[in-house]
Amino acid sequence: MRTLNRLAVFALAVAGLCGARSAWSYDQLVEKKTFTLPALTTVGGKTIKQVKVGYETYGTLNAEGSNAIFIPHYFSGTSHAAGKYAATDPAPGYWDALIGPGKPLDTDKYFIVSADNLVNLNVKDPHVVTTGPASINPDTGKPYGMTFPIVTFRDSVNVHKALVDALGVKHLQAVIGASGGSMLTMEWAASYPELVERAIPVIPGGVAFNPYAVEVASVWASAVTSDPKWNHGDYYGKEEPLQGVAEAMKMVSLSSRHYGWADRTFGRKPAQAGHEPIDSWDNLYAIEATFNAGAAAAAKRTDANSLLYTIKANQLFSVYQAADLQQGLQRIKARVLFIPADSDLLLFPDYSRQAMALLRAQGKQAEIFELHGDGGHLDGITQIMQAGPAIRAFLSK
Amino acid sequence: MRTLNRLAVFALAVAGLCGARSAWSYDQLVEKKTFTLPALTTVGGKTIKQVKVGYETYGTLNAEGSNAIFIPHYFSGTSHAAGKYAATDPAPGYWDALIGPGKPLDTDKYFIVSADNLVNLNVKDPHVVTTGPASINPDTGKPYGMTFPIVTFRDSVNVHKALVDALGVKHLQAVIGASGGSMLTMEWAASYPELVERAIPVIPGGVAFNPYAVEVASVWASAVTSDPKWNHGDYYGKEEPLQGVAEAMKMVSLSSRHYGWADRTFGRKPAQAGHEPIDSWDNLYAIEATFNAGAAAAAKRTDANSLLYTIKANQLFSVYQAADLQQGLQRIKARVLFIPADSDLLLFPDYSRQAMALLRAQGKQAEIFELHGDGGHLDGITQIMQAGPAIRAFLSK
Repeated sequence: MRTLNRLAVFALAVAGLCGARSAWSYDQLVEKKTFTLPALTTVGGKTIKQVKVGYETYGTLNAEGSNAIFIPHYFSGTSHAAGKYAATDPAPGYWDALIGPGKPLDTDKYFIVSADNLVNLNVKDPHVVTTGPASINPDTGKPYGMTFPIVTFRDSVNVHKALVDALGVKHLQAVIGASGGSMLTMEWAASYPELVERAIPVIPGGVAFNPYAVEVASVWASAVTSDPKWNHGDYYGKEEPLQGVAEAMKMVSLSSRHYGWADRTFGRKPAQAGHEPIDSWDNLYAIEATFNAGAAAAAKRTDANSLLYTIKANQLFSVYQAADLQQGLQRIKARVLFIPADSDLLLFPDYSRQAMALLRAQGKQAEIFELHGDGGHLDGITQIMQAGPAIRAFLSK
Repeated sequence: MRTLNRLAVFALAVAGLCGARSAWSYDQLVEKKTFTLPALTTVGGKTIKQVKVGYETYGTLNAEGSNAIFIPHYFSGTSHAAGKYAATDPAPGYWDALIGPGKPLDTDKYFIVSADNLVNLNVKDPHVVTTGPASINPDTGKPYGMTFPIVTFRDSVNVHKALVDALGVKHLQAVIGASGGSMLTMEWAASYPELVERAIPVIPGGVAFNPYAVEVASVWASAVTSDPKWNHGDYYGKEEPLQGVAEAMKMVSLSSRHYGWADRTFGRKPAQAGHEPIDSWDNLYAIEATFNAGAAAAAKRTDANSLLYTIKANQLFSVYQAADLQQGLQRIKARVLFIPADSDLLLFPDYSRQAMALLRAQGKQAEIFELHGDGGHLDGITQIMQAGPAIRAFLSK
């Protein structure tokens, strides 16, 4: 996140130099709103009362309710995809470059809705509204902790469907999301095939969370549950398992990157000139010190249990919870544009190619636009404008 | 390791079916011997007394001492590269397929020496002899713990050089090692350029441990030091930090693999049929249960501090501890054959290409033979026979 913010600040500086009409693409102030659903029955068969999620909108819904685009967010992300809450915010939403008047996601043309997931891990962020293990269980008056039902991405999609219904949306021109958001995008297309005209999964998980990633994410979870302060999820009002969460978030960040990026950003420089790692256990490499600091900061804004629930939702992802790769895809009617990043070391581009091939074998329209770079998985956020023309063309088809 | 052993057992079964003359390539019983060096001055300027390392030999040294090949071992490996200690051993050494009469490393022709590294993490294996943090400090009569000097791969090479001198070796036809062993191979070529005629780094670290891998390994170390039982390295005679070590070894194993291997070995199967991960936090995927079990077993044979010292040695690797990529290579006179694995997700093949280009730019002979597969880094062990003809040809040049 630190790096992301730095990148965003850098992007702002560049935009300023280029004489852009404002320092960010979507130059409106954005308001976070709350949507409440009285009750949700989960895919796993449990009921959650008083479900709340935050959302923001960019652009205006037309009279027919037919010009909407929905954006679900990535693993550690939020619904803040574009614009700023206040002019003094250091950076705009994560996909601001893509969203705004005249941008590929054109706010002069589309009504864009972006919503927080269930079990969002940034529960301490005042701009995030979510329902999950850190929420108060109305039946007990205490936080759910690990008694909160296990939820899938399809559960978030079902809440988001109720939200867009409430907003008067009758048709989705597209659903577009990155990483975890790509999986919600696929679930949208499979869950509400009549509603979703186009699906644009970015840095996609493909048809199902791949087995290698299942284990990668399992290790993230172990880092949390190994911390004695996690205490089987019962830490609310006590000391939080910050160390375990920091270790997990360090791995999340590292999995989102690539060795080319590490080479050019850090090389083998020590964290402090003259303090060589050969001389002491306290002397770190620059890359280690940066990840340690970033992870410690991330831990402070992350709820440990919500992180575990988010990991579980990722692991459980298989389109429409289907047991095989074909079955869930059969429900999809949308045209699909996969946008993988060629340097992705977490959700490998091979899985986009597999998903495209399976959809085509079912007679559906699916295509790929590959992002090039050495930034890894995160290129789906920072390099998305490479795909700007492809997204624009796909939306006009 | 469990997987490795299973593979070895499987290989034995196949060899038996094919009517090979014995169930393993190097059909001699192997003896572990101990080499002692009275004192070593480390690259970092410290002195270690009574340095001991284990070694084994295959084949016979000729009268001129000119037919030797040296094999350093990988991260979690030992000097047991070929043959068996007893006919009843379930599996032979890790590169047994490569080593034996008529094999690419032909024991009818070469005298092969394989030695344990300093700070080998398998200190509890009775067939491993090493000096490291778990050794008794002769000055105090107690285990060194974290007071043991930080050592580099070059320190192990210096001990191994004294060993081959003591054995009467005057010339090394080749040094060949996988992974961590590839880095020791490069250090051999840079440290003793007159002695080493050929260097064969397999699944190579290239010229230096890459910054991305520095951070990957840093996360392994954090898993150990986050375990309260690690107690700053003071756990000898007390409860050991088994959980932290298990987490670290799980990550080591995962980094050694590839998503293609995970797909075909596990898919998204649950650990127990009918116990779906959506239904309970206790219900794991098969890949999770297998890695958990493998890691718990690995933790029991691994010394936590030795693991940290081995991680540090990897992170510190830069040929001859040079500050830039050119400088250490300038010392090398050997011809070099790099053998990367195309599916390697830890020591990426790009770094072999970089090292080859740098050596060639210095007017040296360097070439690449790439292993193909979807096994990841571990293909350097399991798929080495793909390179058999290339190794044989390179040794005869």
